[in-house]
Amino acid sequence: MNSEKIKVIPLGGLEQIGMNITAFEYEDEIIVVDCGLSFPTDDMLGIDLVIPDVTYLKENQAKLKGFFITHGHEDHIGALPYVLREVNAPIFATTLTMGLIEHKLKEHKLDINTDRIIVDFGCVVKVGKMSVEFIKTNHSIVDAAALAIYSPAGVIVHTGDFKVDYTPVYGDAIDLQRFAELGKKGVLALMCDSTNAERPGFTASEKTLGKTFDNIFHEHQNRRILVATFASNVDRVQQIINTAHSYGRKVVVEGRSMVNIIQTAVELNRLSIPENTLIDIDELNNYPDEKTVIITTGSQGESMAALSRMAGGIHKKIKISPMDTIIFSSHPIPGNEKAVTKVINDLLLKGAEVIFQDAHVSGHACREEIKLIYTLTQPKYAIPVHGEFKHLKAQEEIAKELGMTSDRIIILRSGSVLEIGEDGAETVGEVPCGALYVDGLGVGDVGTTVMRERQNLAEDGIVIVTLVIDSYTGEYLAGPTITSRGFIYMKEAEDLLDEATVLATEKLDKLRGQGVTDWNRLKGALRDVLGDFFRKKTKRNPMIVSVFEEV
Amino acid sequence: MNSEKIKVIPLGGLEQIGMNITAFEYEDEIIVVDCGLSFPTDDMLGIDLVIPDVTYLKENQAKLKGFFITHGHEDHIGALPYVLREVNAPIFATTLTMGLIEHKLKEHKLDINTDRIIVDFGCVVKVGKMSVEFIKTNHSIVDAAALAIYSPAGVIVHTGDFKVDYTPVYGDAIDLQRFAELGKKGVLALMCDSTNAERPGFTASEKTLGKTFDNIFHEHQNRRILVATFASNVDRVQQIINTAHSYGRKVVVEGRSMVNIIQTAVELNRLSIPENTLIDIDELNNYPDEKTVIITTGSQGESMAALSRMAGGIHKKIKISPMDTIIFSSHPIPGNEKAVTKVINDLLLKGAEVIFQDAHVSGHACREEIKLIYTLTQPKYAIPVHGEFKHLKAQEEIAKELGMTSDRIIILRSGSVLEIGEDGAETVGEVPCGALYVDGLGVGDVGTTVMRERQNLAEDGIVIVTLVIDSYTGEYLAGPTITSRGFIYMKEAEDLLDEATVLATEKLDKLRGQGVTDWNRLKGALRDVLGDFFRKKTKRNPMIVSVFEEV
Repeated sequence: MNSEKIKVIPLGGLEQIGMNITAFEYEDEIIVVDCGLSFPTDDMLGIDLVIPDVTYLKENQAKLKGFFITHGHEDHIGALPYVLREVNAPIFATTLTMGLIEHKLKEHKLDINTDRIIVDFGCVVKVGKMSVEFIKTNHSIVDAAALAIYSPAGVIVHTGDFKVDYTPVYGDAIDLQRFAELGKKGVLALMCDSTNAERPGFTASEKTLGKTFDNIFHEHQNRRILVATFASNVDRVQQIINTAHSYGRKVVVEGRSMVNIIQTAVELNRLSIPENTLIDIDELNNYPDEKTVIITTGSQGESMAALSRMAGGIHKKIKISPMDTIIFSSHPIPGNEKAVTKVINDLLLKGAEVIFQDAHVSGHACREEIKLIYTLTQPKYAIPVHGEFKHLKAQEEIAKELGMTSDRIIILRSGSVLEIGEDGAETVGEVPCGALYVDGLGVGDVGTTVMRERQNLAEDGIVIVTLVIDSYTGEYLAGPTITSRGFIYMKEAEDLLDEATVLATEKLDKLRGQGVTDWNRLKGALRDVLGDFFRKKTKRNPMIVSVFEEV
Repeated sequence: MNSEKIKVIPLGGLEQIGMNITAFEYEDEIIVVDCGLSFPTDDMLGIDLVIPDVTYLKENQAKLKGFFITHGHEDHIGALPYVLREVNAPIFATTLTMGLIEHKLKEHKLDINTDRIIVDFGCVVKVGKMSVEFIKTNHSIVDAAALAIYSPAGVIVHTGDFKVDYTPVYGDAIDLQRFAELGKKGVLALMCDSTNAERPGFTASEKTLGKTFDNIFHEHQNRRILVATFASNVDRVQQIINTAHSYGRKVVVEGRSMVNIIQTAVELNRLSIPENTLIDIDELNNYPDEKTVIITTGSQGESMAALSRMAGGIHKKIKISPMDTIIFSSHPIPGNEKAVTKVINDLLLKGAEVIFQDAHVSGHACREEIKLIYTLTQPKYAIPVHGEFKHLKAQEEIAKELGMTSDRIIILRSGSVLEIGEDGAETVGEVPCGALYVDGLGVGDVGTTVMRERQNLAEDGIVIVTLVIDSYTGEYLAGPTITSRGFIYMKEAEDLLDEATVLATEKLDKLRGQGVTDWNRLKGALRDVLGDFFRKKTKRNPMIVSVFEEV
């Protein structure tokens, strides 16, 4: 029996959606699959995005052989511009994925000499003692790949995000034969997408939407049509453009990310636009409304996206009217429901018609598709990936239904080091891992302290107490003066703030009488007396900050 | 033809879920239907709840004849303790509704001499020239009523929140015969619940859940069972208790609001608990796990509710273990999806089993039920109520399907004054209306300014600049000193803050050289120079507050 071992070290992407990054370590070599970001949750105030802590990779830069990227979504490529500032290694990806990475690095003005290698499906990349094969899959973005990672310890199949689409819009169906071949030869572990593991049945083919769009266009021949969808879903955009073309409509693309991705996809031959179909937004007025279609970003209700600006009446070039039909070709990502609903209500208030249902299919495999991949690959071990804990547990249930025993199903946590081989699998340690907040230009400089301050400030605002002290006599020369922000409407709370000033003055006088001069003690006393006072009077807990000046 | 008119004036509850309150004005008399609150949206930082602005009622206190409350949910009664401080009028409600109002007023220590009159179904209350009949309906709380408002201008039927439940758990089915009778005599307007107007079909009976609970209890006889549901759904609680009793389990009720409502419901005979079934939480240890059931609050993932504390491992008396099965007998209210998912993931991480589906039915009428009420009442006018704009529009569609013409369907906005009678309906004006924020003890003292400050503070924190000025010479005696909170981790940003201090000093010196002494100009200059500096260096926009002291 083969007694070799390989280490699997997820640095993110488990217990959460997003921030996918996993290291595979064999002897003195490491390869990394994906390098994604995640979007901030509501409690991460002011944060733009979240990236994985790659301390482990920095500490092992010498071992690092390459990044292998499964597809071009932000949660798989978005952290690259940050991580590449910390560690360097060649990037391997398929055509569109690499196109999107190139664009991203350009946007970040990253002048790095990282090798970027475009890999075709079916090709095997050898880096040191490991090699990686890119296998065709289907997903809500073109050129998605599963990876077969070959090492002396065995083959690990990582599906990336995937679905089984027998009739894809662009390119081939998922290479099920290759999954079967690998299974026949023996797969050590399957790391399979769990996102839809709670959903029964099969995900519908992207192509089914062609008919849907045709029906909607047919029923709305006298109206302008707007379609909101994910910028990166090139196949979706292709189908909307095809339908528009067949109805003799001109197409406008609106929203920065939509324009970028479409441009990249056209350059790389992943999207083909019939001649004379695409027009500039400024040309819209040259055509009757019912002969135009606007494909736009904002399907998730993002407040600054094009559709939200149209709905709010602040878009500079497009005004929504009762002659418009807006199709949401998307489902709200959990957490975005209210924002999406707000946009819908705003559009309806402007008299527009909104079509919200049946114009979307998922990009992830449902239960029966997951069973198919398990059955083809027959892995010795199952390591569910991509999803919150509940999704991983749902995939565990699937594996059990298929007859796998508990000891062969491994639910990892980010930072765990799993050592796995033919003769066993066990967690042998932990490496540093975590989430770094990106806020403006700062990466990681907003941590727990600053975040707690922001939460406190957001909840009840701030009260600032200033005091000028004579450095010779210790006398109070001016103040205490109380200023507040975000706490109470100051003009109407003069009495309250006057009373607080009296209390602060009395407290300071008393402490001075007792000979207390230590600033920290004085500030602590002010915090206590004012905190109690405001809590009693208002049931609020503003942050209380004292600033003393010595003269 | 009757040429009398009645005014319908919604002061809240349209274009939103919650804050239901509508005035009906005939000549010099006003009655008010419901007096609810709404819960803050994510952008209302630090706000506890939101209540309607009742300026119009205050200005017309002399006309005010009574509050008629349809049922005991917060979005229909929750603003009473606040509104009753502003205006006074008798409250009319059914038994449980009044019980919950009494409890609420007690909690608020409201010592008011407002008359409170309990009304039975079928009874008509005459107040001045209008009268109001309470009609039995079904909803996710016991004792829900529709109201028939009689005036010389005609009859307006207001459904309140309702569903059609032919087999309710407690009491009778909705009094469809009475709706039919009213329709036969002639209904001027129907104000019908729109919440589920987008959903096809019928809402299932509450009673169907009895079988569901029985199945779940049957399959989990060796485990402790916890059920999370809405505190106010007395029928749901009744069914859980019945099932627990039939399986010989003891029941613990946990969560303040759950305990309160159950106590009120038992006192008013709306809930009957078999003897020796309810035990105190401290007695849990006297029984084997598999012989207990815990009914708890927290089904919406509310961070301080009992279930969230259990899931987070900070509940003092209940520890979640792999022997627990937790049933969510609820659906997430839009906006709560992520919070609910977090609780589920936390429970799964503790090894518990979570049952999330099929243990809930809605309390609102779906499309076929709405059609039924329209068909029974045959109103001259339709005024959809209770819901966001998209729900009102969905009900408009239903009314059109039933053959009503557009001119007979009126979508009102809060604050609009609709004058309606047999010979026409038109909006004749506007009254003040709006939302007041309740934050701690303050009502309305957090307005636009304070909220904008909180949003700014939440996003990027605050930078405080202090300066001591000699009142004789105008010299700067100390400072400028820069302090920050929630902006950047100060210990690691010393260089940045030093650089900012130098910039501020230079700017102040320059202005002093130019003879500028006006504090507002100086403060404005500091805001500009520091704002630009921080934006350039960090891409963040902290609030910049200057405090000057004169010595």
